[in-house]
Amino acid sequence: VSLDPDAAATLGTVRVVGTGLLGTSVGLALSALGTRVLLSDSSPTALALAADLGAGDPDPGGVPARLTVVATPPDVTAQIVARELAADPETTVTDVASVKAGVLRRVAELGADLSRYVGGHPMAGRERSGPLAARGDLFVGRPWVICPGEKSDTTRVFDVRLLAQAVGAGAVLMDAGEHDAAVAVVSHVPQVAASLVAARLQHVTDDVVALAGQGLRDVTRIAAGDPLLWTQILGANAAPVVAELASLRADLDALIDALEEPGSVGLTQVAGLINRGNIGRERIPGKHGGGPTRYAVLTVIMPDRPGQLGRLFADIGAAGINIEEIALEHAPGRAVGLLELSVLPSAESELVETLARGGWQVVS
Amino acid sequence: VSLDPDAAATLGTVRVVGTGLLGTSVGLALSALGTRVLLSDSSPTALALAADLGAGDPDPGGVPARLTVVATPPDVTAQIVARELAADPETTVTDVASVKAGVLRRVAELGADLSRYVGGHPMAGRERSGPLAARGDLFVGRPWVICPGEKSDTTRVFDVRLLAQAVGAGAVLMDAGEHDAAVAVVSHVPQVAASLVAARLQHVTDDVVALAGQGLRDVTRIAAGDPLLWTQILGANAAPVVAELASLRADLDALIDALEEPGSVGLTQVAGLINRGNIGRERIPGKHGGGPTRYAVLTVIMPDRPGQLGRLFADIGAAGINIEEIALEHAPGRAVGLLELSVLPSAESELVETLARGGWQVVS
Repeated sequence: VSLDPDAAATLGTVRVVGTGLLGTSVGLALSALGTRVLLSDSSPTALALAADLGAGDPDPGGVPARLTVVATPPDVTAQIVARELAADPETTVTDVASVKAGVLRRVAELGADLSRYVGGHPMAGRERSGPLAARGDLFVGRPWVICPGEKSDTTRVFDVRLLAQAVGAGAVLMDAGEHDAAVAVVSHVPQVAASLVAARLQHVTDDVVALAGQGLRDVTRIAAGDPLLWTQILGANAAPVVAELASLRADLDALIDALEEPGSVGLTQVAGLINRGNIGRERIPGKHGGGPTRYAVLTVIMPDRPGQLGRLFADIGAAGINIEEIALEHAPGRAVGLLELSVLPSAESELVETLARGGWQVVS
Repeated sequence: VSLDPDAAATLGTVRVVGTGLLGTSVGLALSALGTRVLLSDSSPTALALAADLGAGDPDPGGVPARLTVVATPPDVTAQIVARELAADPETTVTDVASVKAGVLRRVAELGADLSRYVGGHPMAGRERSGPLAARGDLFVGRPWVICPGEKSDTTRVFDVRLLAQAVGAGAVLMDAGEHDAAVAVVSHVPQVAASLVAARLQHVTDDVVALAGQGLRDVTRIAAGDPLLWTQILGANAAPVVAELASLRADLDALIDALEEPGSVGLTQVAGLINRGNIGRERIPGKHGGGPTRYAVLTVIMPDRPGQLGRLFADIGAAGINIEEIALEHAPGRAVGLLELSVLPSAESELVETLARGGWQVVS
């Protein structure tokens, strides 16, 4: 919906090194916009798949490109960045590794031309990896953090902005260290917490996991992430992650002490942590990048058979009501679902009437 | 959809003490089935609201009831249970507190008639509390854990099973200690983890929270819970929660040590934790109470205006395709949403064709 053909046309030829999820997705987006994309990967199979999917053509070598996107696993990123800077003396090189300060430092240590290197981190991912999971719209509406080094040329930064714009992402400029501290908080620590909670489930009985509700499901969803990739990410961002985890551990220690302390002193500390969690949670931006929005939520009982959602949303659409959020929750052990519909408070009464007219079972 | 009028008719008159979310929801379900429900609450406002919503009639006092449901805050539950056992010498008393061993112990200490007390815990809740958030279908398809004490009469256990059946829940019998250890793992520790992660967001800049993605949102969703209620719950289940948190802290300590250790030894330990999280996450049951189901997932780009969901689900419904799960994700800063549709793998190709015919922008 918001890929940008003009930005893509300005870019000209783009080289993509590494045809996993991110590299192939960049290739799909740019190729769809008519940009010439040259693909390479150390795996002939991954390369063939990406080319076959329409992400670009295998790189014949020796073709100059205005921009080279290094989308390899993070533990080899710096080395490939340096290699690409040396191989094509005019190209701008960026990367998509999710940790930035270490890559910049290592590229400098390798003696590469830092004026042409500008690190990047598209904040987009999926639970699946590899070229088959790639999508041309993967970056649409997502932040694409750009981390110029002190020696990066302004025109090279502009090239990476063009890339973000072409694939529909929103460019955010940030210092590499700031970026790494930020992703430790918003991405790496949540991943660790999800894994720590999910690891508790490894040895409990089936009776226990049968009591799992939506809360546990939500907290542990990202615990399904790829161990190899997450090991590389956490290892590459060890210092900022350890700093945040140490602070989390101090809160955890205080909570354990509080729960072991009978009486009101302990309880006050417990309430304090839950309250701080409330405040932190409130800070997460809502839809469309604004502040967290309060919606009116209605729950509709959905028989689990084809056509019900169609009938429901046809009713809602005919009434001109815009649904802000949807959650379909299945009742364990039963062929019935509960559909939660969120609307702006101003639309609630109209939605209630519409559902009543349609004969839907609903409780506000 | 699966409230049970026969079970409700067998129950006869039911007294509900405490008209918050759970008590009012019990009243709404039973009243809808024609059961006489007598309501009381220490707050005249909460009582009047619950009665007005149709949850039952204010308790005039002195009327015998086959079953008394104590749905007060957990820190006064045992005391009210003992009071109700004494006030009505024939009634069976149950409660809905989310921690069970402490209530049973305290009821015994108060010298109450333990043969007529059977603890219960309906595993249903919402982010909102109070009678206005109540729903007659709150318990439909949810587990309702029943924890008889050693002295509970079998006929009294049957009364509580009838209640669970009447409101559409699935009765699960469990020892009180087993229950408390189970909810520490599946509910209380996830709550603490969500609060610990969300608490980190309290003092970061807006630039940092602007990078928040769906992972952070999911991990911290339940951190929005009520501090007073959660303080009572964690305080009442302190020993099992501390045991689990101590085990989590040991994993956290090992992870921090591993991240501070350069080289492969540390990385192996990091990978080990993420891998254990993978395995634990896989154990959470999927839809309809079965094992975790693998779905095919397709993502559709949704313009953010009324009628789009209706048009989409009408197309899907006309093709006879059953959607298993839905997730609508809004792109930050843009008026566009990404709708993830999960279907059984056997339905994937048909869904792909249906979406293509309807002109939907989709990537598999």
